[in-house]
Amino acid sequence: MGRVTERRRVIRIRDGAVSTRPDTLVAEEPLEIRLGGKPLAITMRTPGDDFALAAGFLVSEGVLASAGELANIVYCAGATDEGGSNSYNVVDVRLAEGVPVPDITLERNVYTTSSCGLCGKASLDAVRTTTRWPLDTSPETPVRIEPATLSALPDRLRSAQRVFERTGGLHAAALFTTDGELLDIREDVGRHNAVDKIVGRALQQGQLPLSSCVLMVSGRASFELVQKAVMAGIPVLAAVSAPSSLAVDLAVETGLTLVGFLRGASMNVYAGEHRLALSAAASTD
Amino acid sequence: MGRVTERRRVIRIRDGAVSTRPDTLVAEEPLEIRLGGKPLAITMRTPGDDFALAAGFLVSEGVLASAGELANIVYCAGATDEGGSNSYNVVDVRLAEGVPVPDITLERNVYTTSSCGLCGKASLDAVRTTTRWPLDTSPETPVRIEPATLSALPDRLRSAQRVFERTGGLHAAALFTTDGELLDIREDVGRHNAVDKIVGRALQQGQLPLSSCVLMVSGRASFELVQKAVMAGIPVLAAVSAPSSLAVDLAVETGLTLVGFLRGASMNVYAGEHRLALSAAASTD
Repeated sequence: MGRVTERRRVIRIRDGAVSTRPDTLVAEEPLEIRLGGKPLAITMRTPGDDFALAAGFLVSEGVLASAGELANIVYCAGATDEGGSNSYNVVDVRLAEGVPVPDITLERNVYTTSSCGLCGKASLDAVRTTTRWPLDTSPETPVRIEPATLSALPDRLRSAQRVFERTGGLHAAALFTTDGELLDIREDVGRHNAVDKIVGRALQQGQLPLSSCVLMVSGRASFELVQKAVMAGIPVLAAVSAPSSLAVDLAVETGLTLVGFLRGASMNVYAGEHRLALSAAASTD
Repeated sequence: MGRVTERRRVIRIRDGAVSTRPDTLVAEEPLEIRLGGKPLAITMRTPGDDFALAAGFLVSEGVLASAGELANIVYCAGATDEGGSNSYNVVDVRLAEGVPVPDITLERNVYTTSSCGLCGKASLDAVRTTTRWPLDTSPETPVRIEPATLSALPDRLRSAQRVFERTGGLHAAALFTTDGELLDIREDVGRHNAVDKIVGRALQQGQLPLSSCVLMVSGRASFELVQKAVMAGIPVLAAVSAPSSLAVDLAVETGLTLVGFLRGASMNVYAGEHRLALSAAASTD
């Protein structure tokens, strides 16, 4: 538990010079998530915040939407490593009385909406119809953010990253207020896990939907990251790098504000620009 | 098919100036992989090379190891989009007569080696005992590579990347000879998919194991990327960024040469240094 980094021997080559020294690496271990005792998914993650990761994963999958639906989460006592100690790599999530247990047989099965048709549109529809926290898409939405506030986020994310500097191997996700105040930050070897940990922690604290927050991620914006933001009711997702086509489509479909290539005073807005306080009208050139 | 990029409208903000223009994004679509008609996994991928992706995925999972075990791969004819056209997002892999069809109920179930114990060690053991192409770990291995040859690979990878420059959203994987000659390169919105496409293509062409090749990836080296290299019999994996602890452990366990932070004349060697022609003996400082 909490094994965020580990030490390994490394041979360094620098312009032909060879030396051996210890190196700090990001820890990676498998985590099996069970639902009511039944195996649901295995993810490779950085240990720590495992209960939050499991809870957030279930928010993304549409199983959980509020703290009251969660009974408890435990480490499986029988999940031992070769030495007989608990591996702390298997968690079991128990839903509250009356919460329906979905019939999940395939990881990511939320995308499979019919026996045969599988296309981007079906993936969009699945998220739109599954989310319990639809975004407020009215032009009068009270959630507004200044581009200048967004511009300050990457530096704040970076300075709050504790482990990345030492290992170079971690993705980060951070939750901010629309005024740019840092609420939470998580790092993980997997970008999806970092977001799940943020969302799961918020669920555990009874804070869903996160309807006045901005989620910032250190890398690219994929479909799945947009899905995770939408399922948690987060109205703004900002990424340091590029989004994919389907990420943009899902943002447009659900009314999410999606910002990419956020680097200092530069950014690209792919969807939901009504939440941005843009002083000048957009011109086409 | 082959929709590697798509165009979307973007609002650009540059130091307060706002403009609207079309932007090129990397395409992302779901792909369902079926085995003998039975759904096995869904991955979000960049369309193109889908049969190679499916074949490579099955190599990584230990189902396929040579071209003769593969009967054929087809797009599921009934997998239509809302307009009634084939979505080309569902592929069905049929194994050759006599090849055992595994009982796969969970994605990544290769890590689950017992009913309860799940730990890093179990993940390592699963790969080591599953691979059909164990690496030659003898000190006299004929596979040698010069550090100078490795140093040249990132530039070659980068110059061969066609789509990344336009979208900024793609991971790349490339296969080189130990002399640094480029054999194949694939780009995908998912780093695992790019490697699966390389490995699957090689399987289709009867080239497994890739025992005298170097695999280079544009990002980090996770456990799963090391797994994919090992399962295809690739002895050297080089990454631009950091490996995880479990990636290093798996490389040590299987005898893979793992190089990280490969940037010009600088690199870190985490395992399998016997394949590198190091002129000076390593010194500890």
